[in-house]
Amino acid sequence: MKIQPGETKLGFIGTGVMGKSMAGHLIDTGFSLSIYSRTKEKSQPLLDKGASWCESPKAVAENSDVVFAIVGFPSDVREVFLGEEGMLAGAKSGTVLVDMTTSEPSLAVEIYEAAKAKQVHAVDAPVSGGDVGAKNAALSIMIGGDEEIVSALQPCWEAMGKTIVYQGKAGSGQHTKMVNQTLIATGMIGVCEALLYGYKAGLDLETVMKSVSSGAAGSWSLANYGPRMMGNDFDPGFFVEHFIKDMGIALAEARRMQISLPGLALAQQLYISLQAIGHGRDGVQALILALAEMSKIDWKSR
Amino acid sequence: MKIQPGETKLGFIGTGVMGKSMAGHLIDTGFSLSIYSRTKEKSQPLLDKGASWCESPKAVAENSDVVFAIVGFPSDVREVFLGEEGMLAGAKSGTVLVDMTTSEPSLAVEIYEAAKAKQVHAVDAPVSGGDVGAKNAALSIMIGGDEEIVSALQPCWEAMGKTIVYQGKAGSGQHTKMVNQTLIATGMIGVCEALLYGYKAGLDLETVMKSVSSGAAGSWSLANYGPRMMGNDFDPGFFVEHFIKDMGIALAEARRMQISLPGLALAQQLYISLQAIGHGRDGVQALILALAEMSKIDWKSR
Repeated sequence: MKIQPGETKLGFIGTGVMGKSMAGHLIDTGFSLSIYSRTKEKSQPLLDKGASWCESPKAVAENSDVVFAIVGFPSDVREVFLGEEGMLAGAKSGTVLVDMTTSEPSLAVEIYEAAKAKQVHAVDAPVSGGDVGAKNAALSIMIGGDEEIVSALQPCWEAMGKTIVYQGKAGSGQHTKMVNQTLIATGMIGVCEALLYGYKAGLDLETVMKSVSSGAAGSWSLANYGPRMMGNDFDPGFFVEHFIKDMGIALAEARRMQISLPGLALAQQLYISLQAIGHGRDGVQALILALAEMSKIDWKSR
Repeated sequence: MKIQPGETKLGFIGTGVMGKSMAGHLIDTGFSLSIYSRTKEKSQPLLDKGASWCESPKAVAENSDVVFAIVGFPSDVREVFLGEEGMLAGAKSGTVLVDMTTSEPSLAVEIYEAAKAKQVHAVDAPVSGGDVGAKNAALSIMIGGDEEIVSALQPCWEAMGKTIVYQGKAGSGQHTKMVNQTLIATGMIGVCEALLYGYKAGLDLETVMKSVSSGAAGSWSLANYGPRMMGNDFDPGFFVEHFIKDMGIALAEARRMQISLPGLALAQQLYISLQAIGHGRDGVQALILALAEMSKIDWKSR
């Protein structure tokens, strides 16, 4: 299989916050693109750039050699890949279907097997880096599936990401993303608790950051989410409700594998509390509001 | 107050893993140094470099303008500063006593007040960076006390550390260190759980690190402790039993301030379990063994 702009016909399903930038990069690289999204209006900028609209994921697959999808929840993935109007219903032999949604590793394996039975290739390739990473084509892409297919897609990966790593057989991309989310989730508890402690101890938090951010306590989350928490900026780069979904997948897989993950379980509970107090559509850095609430600290108006 | 090598007489109490390097840097900068340590043999390299031995903290204070101490537990700090043979019993008016042990913020305030009543200055200045940071004079030093005294000590701070930040009134250095430890403690749970998940999911952990270590999931702990965990290197850079002490201080202070810190509490419980299974004198990265044990994973011989 040889992937080449101008020759290979690509498809893209899901043109939300992440998808619109990623699909845009593929067009900019010179690929022709068929697209479908639940909300057609969100695709308009891509149609203006020359993408062709299709009425279903099935129609996209019929028109494409390789299709990328990034949708919301595992139920959406199931519908888009395996549903009556889904991609597999339209894909011809040799087509490659790539799921970039963060979804269940076991569903990735199920899709891989179902595709294989029709001589179709399936790849799981969730991403990390958020809306900014998508915009700057700087995503970390974690990839599972057949290695030769994954390698052949290199020009596409490079159009969208910067850290592109093949992790192994089908499902390995999703598992790696779960490792990533476990790290972020548990680390976020620490960032929130540390800032609340410092605030209640009467410290100047910006001065505290000078002491702690570059040493053994340092992390991407502290450096990037810490200042947003301090500045009461809870705009979503990554939605709380999507993060709860991701943690749920990781915990379900961990339970299946019989591993106890008390830190991740605590993180999910705290995020559920955050959602309960009305912050499901805020960014994940809003977690500090749930922890503040537990100790009756009025963080926003401190 | 003017601090100058060749004129100012310094003292140093506690020449363990950290103290021996820190005191050595002060001698190398040209200061004369009186020293005391519980185990005299540990001071021999410093005596060979020209330091003078004293028989008690009190005697060190009698012979010094400024004394630094880095000992073990808050009880040791109390004895070394406030005991019968302690520094305050020997310090003359105008002497500066600096505690670099990670200890209780409230004890730092108590020492500051007791010192002030004798016209002695007390400063709390715990450090982060471990044995390597001490050796390379690259410590982060978090400082509380009277600002003019802290400023006057600049030549000494610079001899021992790289990130030198004045955090505010007495106790603020210790509070900042608690912020630092809260970040590390909670983040360490995530590092361990992420590696265990990846291992049980059948991923190659070194390949996983390529995907997750430089993005939003990245942290100092992941980059530095992760590889040691993978390589079964549990040598102490920082002892589990000291970390449990630090978390105990932070949790007690948080309770006093009425803040609930569930992540830090969980971390301490997991470290207590690690100590219970025989790893109190290992390095903090051994935490993965406690979490592995909970799920009956034989991490060491995987």
